[in-house]
Amino acid sequence: MKVDDRHYRSIWLDADGWSVAAIDQRKLPHEFVVAQLTTCEEAADAIRTMLVRGAPLIGATAAFGIALAMRQDSSDDGLDRAYQTLVVARPTAINLEWALEKMRATLGPLDPAERVDAAYARADEILEQDVAINQGIARHGLPLIEAIAARKEPGEPVNVLTHCNAGWLATVDWGTATAPIYLAHEQGVAVHVWVDETRPRNQGAALTAWELGHHGVPHTVIPDNTGGHLMQHGMVDLVIVGTDRVAGNGDVCNKIGTYLKALAARDNNVPFYVALPSPTIDFSVSDGIRQIPIEQRGAIEVTDMTGRTADGRVETVRIVPEGSPVANYGFDVTPARLVTGLITERGVLKPNRAALAAAFPERAGAVK
Amino acid sequence: MKVDDRHYRSIWLDADGWSVAAIDQRKLPHEFVVAQLTTCEEAADAIRTMLVRGAPLIGATAAFGIALAMRQDSSDDGLDRAYQTLVVARPTAINLEWALEKMRATLGPLDPAERVDAAYARADEILEQDVAINQGIARHGLPLIEAIAARKEPGEPVNVLTHCNAGWLATVDWGTATAPIYLAHEQGVAVHVWVDETRPRNQGAALTAWELGHHGVPHTVIPDNTGGHLMQHGMVDLVIVGTDRVAGNGDVCNKIGTYLKALAARDNNVPFYVALPSPTIDFSVSDGIRQIPIEQRGAIEVTDMTGRTADGRVETVRIVPEGSPVANYGFDVTPARLVTGLITERGVLKPNRAALAAAFPERAGAVK
Repeated sequence: MKVDDRHYRSIWLDADGWSVAAIDQRKLPHEFVVAQLTTCEEAADAIRTMLVRGAPLIGATAAFGIALAMRQDSSDDGLDRAYQTLVVARPTAINLEWALEKMRATLGPLDPAERVDAAYARADEILEQDVAINQGIARHGLPLIEAIAARKEPGEPVNVLTHCNAGWLATVDWGTATAPIYLAHEQGVAVHVWVDETRPRNQGAALTAWELGHHGVPHTVIPDNTGGHLMQHGMVDLVIVGTDRVAGNGDVCNKIGTYLKALAARDNNVPFYVALPSPTIDFSVSDGIRQIPIEQRGAIEVTDMTGRTADGRVETVRIVPEGSPVANYGFDVTPARLVTGLITERGVLKPNRAALAAAFPERAGAVK
Repeated sequence: MKVDDRHYRSIWLDADGWSVAAIDQRKLPHEFVVAQLTTCEEAADAIRTMLVRGAPLIGATAAFGIALAMRQDSSDDGLDRAYQTLVVARPTAINLEWALEKMRATLGPLDPAERVDAAYARADEILEQDVAINQGIARHGLPLIEAIAARKEPGEPVNVLTHCNAGWLATVDWGTATAPIYLAHEQGVAVHVWVDETRPRNQGAALTAWELGHHGVPHTVIPDNTGGHLMQHGMVDLVIVGTDRVAGNGDVCNKIGTYLKALAARDNNVPFYVALPSPTIDFSVSDGIRQIPIEQRGAIEVTDMTGRTADGRVETVRIVPEGSPVANYGFDVTPARLVTGLITERGVLKPNRAALAAAFPERAGAVK
């Protein structure tokens, strides 16, 4: 998508043909900095420090990390070491291990001399596959927006509420929740996005607002507390969020606070959709609320806030009294009963095992 | 309640016998500063700039403002001017006009020479009445907490979730939502409070956490997104919030985001209580959602955040990208159907007109 009228992806092969460029998302929205990754260790650090974040982008970065490692040591040992270095960088990211397995499956059988070229080629495939999946999500989600637009006065925007950042910055391009929004916007359908700021890390205000703004999509940043009021007053036409993991029964694990928006949507008859690439479906989990472990993150994300002062310095300030304990649960689980549909690259599915298994039999079968 | 082991109210008559001391709530939790108000204009400014906030405290400050004005000019003109100066300081605060009417009703018929003493006496009555109302709320709310404690293992705390600050800082003392919590704590019932940080102004993190911490009540600050997850996992026993206005039908207008917590409470069978002094009931409103106007506040509350840097400076930082529009609705309305009960100074009431009118016939009758 666009930044200052130029098309970008979140990660790409540099013009030198071997090093990897990635947008440093820790600096957004205050600074637009492109980082250069030249070693496997730098790729692992980029994942660990959240220079890159978002499951698909983490997978893409890991794939490139293997390619960078092969340049230094393409032996079996080198491949193993690279795998081990990268897999622990964000233990809970489902796409990280998935991408590393793909790389190992491709490179393992090859002669070490062939591994560098093969690694770059396979990494590139992983990137392009992510883009293709998200374009599929865009295509299948677009009619949901068009149908609402058709009921409105010409030019009156379709109001979409989203939570956190499931935008192009979290993927290679297009995003998941944002993919239908970007496509609608490009096709001339008037859309306006309510962007939950998404405390405590503020991915909505920092990333989603930034990327929508740079691409030219009308949007408004709101505190996470606001969505219920907006829905009560007819100001939200549909909700589209992303997800970190969808259980086999259709329960949706996503950024903390998603469940509250799903409740408000249900209470006000607002459709609530979840956009996801199929690797996010975890058929081994049959009850999302009971079985998906919820990561607890550091207190500092809640107690401290980083931003830019009026005179341009980036400062971090503490907003919670010293001595007050803090809890920071990273995710919550929205029960399938509150989900209108799952927007996947193969269509919009009902949130239940039968529908998921029918659409993705090759994955459902593997778990049974 | 206590600050550093000494008992404070949020506002009091200074030792000089005429000037007014008030805790400067804009500085909390970073600095504990007591402001001295010496004129009606300073009292109005304190209300306007939110040095004091919370409906009952605003009323008390306005009453003192009249007393300060009478010292300077106790003529009929002086009384009128003071009324006009104060009534516009926070136009939507229901207790502001209420307190001013009480003061005018008392002082109007008096000889100007008697008005200074009478004004201080009447202001003091308004303060003491607020304290007595909140003690009533504490007494009626306590059994709700005790009943839950009785079902727990000894020492296992009753987990109460609250939103915003309906604490002693918002009143003269005790608070509304916090009153039963403080009383339970003083009576040795183990309580633990989940404190919603309450974006965008962070009254939970800044004020509720501060006052609970100073009084010694165990608590944990959480992002507003967290409550649904906690309730889903049995970590909240009851919700108690305050309110800015309760409609005659029991709909509850309170800080933005309250409605989302009420939905989560209902979805998880967690009792949802609203604590209120009876002047908060507005019998003239028969449908809270349709009739109560929701104040939109400045974008800066959402875009900017003030806190303390690691080296002790208080700084304000911008957290939303330049150019991204922002919406800031101050309140939302929780429909009566989601409210378990209204904790008032005359008992715990069902949220409907019949119950409210039966408990407060003198007020219901005035509106018909």
